[in-house]
Amino acid sequence: MLNNFQKFLYQEIPLTEKMGLKLLEYSGQELIVGAPLDNNINDKGTVFGGSSSALMIISAWSLIKLNCKEHQIDADIVIHKNETTWQKAMSTDLILKACFHQPYQFDEIKTIIVSGKHQRIECYITLEDKEAKIYSTMSAKYVIIPR
Amino acid sequence: MLNNFQKFLYQEIPLTEKMGLKLLEYSGQELIVGAPLDNNINDKGTVFGGSSSALMIISAWSLIKLNCKEHQIDADIVIHKNETTWQKAMSTDLILKACFHQPYQFDEIKTIIVSGKHQRIECYITLEDKEAKIYSTMSAKYVIIPR
Repeated sequence: MLNNFQKFLYQEIPLTEKMGLKLLEYSGQELIVGAPLDNNINDKGTVFGGSSSALMIISAWSLIKLNCKEHQIDADIVIHKNETTWQKAMSTDLILKACFHQPYQFDEIKTIIVSGKHQRIECYITLEDKEAKIYSTMSAKYVIIPR
Repeated sequence: MLNNFQKFLYQEIPLTEKMGLKLLEYSGQELIVGAPLDNNINDKGTVFGGSSSALMIISAWSLIKLNCKEHQIDADIVIHKNETTWQKAMSTDLILKACFHQPYQFDEIKTIIVSGKHQRIECYITLEDKEAKIYSTMSAKYVIIPR
């Protein structure tokens, strides 16, 4: 499933391929994504804040989208708000971990979407290196919208 | 100056070229940046939120960097925090307008940086279409750090 979803991202959101995004692990509650430093580097040889922001945004969006696919929820997912903090400069490849702020029941969300209503979803995303040292954190609010 | 600075961005932060970023106008107090929808499109045919976030981040960073260059301030600029709201989906080319939250005196900032201290800078960025309709707003905090 992750391979197909990565192809979908590369085709539909071409910047994901330019950033070298790789979907690594998905458990339903969490999605882990990787990206190389080279594609996302800045003038200081560290991670460009714009890249890390874009990668955190697409990681949580993908977590929600994969849950919707699993539950056959036909809906659009849009970002509404986010807040990000960058704690320190990062000079290694990137690992993004996206999870939900609370355990959402996607079977209940399906009922809400089918009835024509929106569902708000809040996610939490960390930017880490492979030793799980955290460089940046994001809180992001998305809306699942019936098509 | 803008042409050279755009070359610098493309060379040092390669994602800026992938996003098709173009520096359009700089007045000292404001920087206007453009980018085509095509490079920054998502699965719904609208602007990818990750792209708009990255473009807003680099627009304000560039505004600060250009002011530092004008005042011969030799320093690194890093993003610390931001908050973004996306009001509606956008399906045209992007225009980013970055300005300062308050009028900063860069000659005074130069004295601070030369003395080895940091300077915090807050910026405000809007994502607009060519009719100046606003689609997204960001408030972002940066730090100017002596080298």
